[in-house]
Amino acid sequence: MVDWPDQRFLDLVGCEYPIIQAPMAGASGVDLGVAAMAGGALGSLPCGMLSADQVRTQVSEVRARANGPLNLNFFCHTMPADPDDSAWRALLQPYYDEFGVEADNGGTLRLPFDAEMCAVVEDVRPEVVSFHFGLPASDLLDRVTRTGAIVIGNATTIAEARWLDSRGVGAIVAQGFEAGGHTGHFLGSDPAEAMGLFALLPQISDAVSVPVIAAGGIGDGRAIAAAFTLGASAVQLGTAYLHAPETPISDAHRARLKEARTLFTNLMTGGLARGIPGRLIDELGPVKSEAPTYPLASAALAPIRAAAERHGEFGFGPMWAGQAAALGQRLGAAELTRRLAADALAILSRGA
Amino acid sequence: MVDWPDQRFLDLVGCEYPIIQAPMAGASGVDLGVAAMAGGALGSLPCGMLSADQVRTQVSEVRARANGPLNLNFFCHTMPADPDDSAWRALLQPYYDEFGVEADNGGTLRLPFDAEMCAVVEDVRPEVVSFHFGLPASDLLDRVTRTGAIVIGNATTIAEARWLDSRGVGAIVAQGFEAGGHTGHFLGSDPAEAMGLFALLPQISDAVSVPVIAAGGIGDGRAIAAAFTLGASAVQLGTAYLHAPETPISDAHRARLKEARTLFTNLMTGGLARGIPGRLIDELGPVKSEAPTYPLASAALAPIRAAAERHGEFGFGPMWAGQAAALGQRLGAAELTRRLAADALAILSRGA
Repeated sequence: MVDWPDQRFLDLVGCEYPIIQAPMAGASGVDLGVAAMAGGALGSLPCGMLSADQVRTQVSEVRARANGPLNLNFFCHTMPADPDDSAWRALLQPYYDEFGVEADNGGTLRLPFDAEMCAVVEDVRPEVVSFHFGLPASDLLDRVTRTGAIVIGNATTIAEARWLDSRGVGAIVAQGFEAGGHTGHFLGSDPAEAMGLFALLPQISDAVSVPVIAAGGIGDGRAIAAAFTLGASAVQLGTAYLHAPETPISDAHRARLKEARTLFTNLMTGGLARGIPGRLIDELGPVKSEAPTYPLASAALAPIRAAAERHGEFGFGPMWAGQAAALGQRLGAAELTRRLAADALAILSRGA
Repeated sequence: MVDWPDQRFLDLVGCEYPIIQAPMAGASGVDLGVAAMAGGALGSLPCGMLSADQVRTQVSEVRARANGPLNLNFFCHTMPADPDDSAWRALLQPYYDEFGVEADNGGTLRLPFDAEMCAVVEDVRPEVVSFHFGLPASDLLDRVTRTGAIVIGNATTIAEARWLDSRGVGAIVAQGFEAGGHTGHFLGSDPAEAMGLFALLPQISDAVSVPVIAAGGIGDGRAIAAAFTLGASAVQLGTAYLHAPETPISDAHRARLKEARTLFTNLMTGGLARGIPGRLIDELGPVKSEAPTYPLASAALAPIRAAAERHGEFGFGPMWAGQAAALGQRLGAAELTRRLAADALAILSRGA
């Protein structure tokens, strides 16, 4: 058994491989977490679209079906005041008409970590708690830390990584702009300055004291090995797991992963997130100023999306994917995890 | 002496190290090429802003001062018809007023490779000819190939790489969106779909038959090693060489390389290029629809830039830089080349 060149993440978390199955709210759940854990990854449950009771139930299911450390992921955005979204609804009006639905406030909003969720963490005691869009207020963060959970933050810039390091997180995700789903930027950086993983990862690795987890555009064992060469102590893969049958995404979404085309859109939630363009993006363009602030844009879209999906049209909901989507293999998540680790270790151990 | 894990580029070109000193029109020339070649890199002369006579003179100087293979780089854009640039001049009017200059058609335009330049290539016989923004018309390309020069094309997407491969180039640059200077995209891809090197490089490497040269965000030996892990047979570095004293850039530009902030702008030429924001970008925003098509925007800007630089203000000219600019070291280009190669080889040869 060859060692990984940086063992710090493994020593910290205790999973078999330095691979995190990325939490993907709306596109992953118990089955994927259980399968990834069976393969030796750190399994993750995305909790930002769940109620407290749903989190408790899902954690119980995972604990009953899998061994090893578990990561619960939460969002830390500030909820905006309810905006005047009349311009957004007006932009969507042709779709209300087409699908014969009314604007309402349906769908599940992405909500930030709060005292109720913190109490769940204190009860269910996940080994790892990860946060997107910054960190919760310090009283909540202190409570999480006191449970013994390792806290992971997400950085899209070197400044964000330093900010997280100074607040005592246990590890930091370096999220390259290649990543599928929402960019976690939170310190007001200009989206035009988004950084690719190739440049971001070594600079974050140099800047912080804690283990760094590479994320974004990592599609296979080569990329995992390259991430370690650039200073990573672990990797976080989301899109690679979307190919797995345990991932609850539509067949339409899964089929389109083999295309290389992805882009940032704010139409689905109001926040910038990378995905495969579908009908809504094709027709409106990927970024519209009419979309209200994250996460509120999803509400007015929800009835259209639900109706469209009943007709087999998936272009009104997110089809998140990162830029390495086409490199994915259709394997079960456990086998995929083991194969990714073996491929990376073979490259890392062979030398030149 | 340890071998590189992929020797194909070295076998093809015959330089000592699989490192190309990137041609940077306006920011590199004879001195940098000579120094990089002395260190074992493939030296490059950017010819897209030179006259035929200037190319002949510079090649003679390099041949007199350096041994080893030389790359001449040319642009292959289609020159647009002279546009109505009155909106662009109106946007710049406050700067004409401030600096007391008139709009004229000054400055040096970036021009495409043509029959006259092809005759120069046939005369001076560079070992390598590289093209940006596609390839020249097939009659010109055939003439270049018949000189025995190895032709290198530049791809920003997998489709562009396949297109270049099908036209018989000898090697392909995979230019990640991290790269400083102009993105070479030429097949009409949407800039919003620009790919990071981490995802682009392995997918191009899988898609083409010829050696792949990684470019964009490669700042040090770690990154060179990682590029080889992702399928590269060589690397092309521009920004890393901007720190070198042989590079003819302003002190203001060089000093700001240590900042991590770069973004794409079209203000300098009309084409999208990554650089460090200065006064013009800060005041107008980085991308303006008033800027005429590449390369024409530079003409109306030229008198303002010249006057501003006489006052020590460099924010009206390009300060190109890639996203790994802050990783650079202030070393002579020869020593830098040797150190980059040694650092990469040490990583590649140690295994896990």
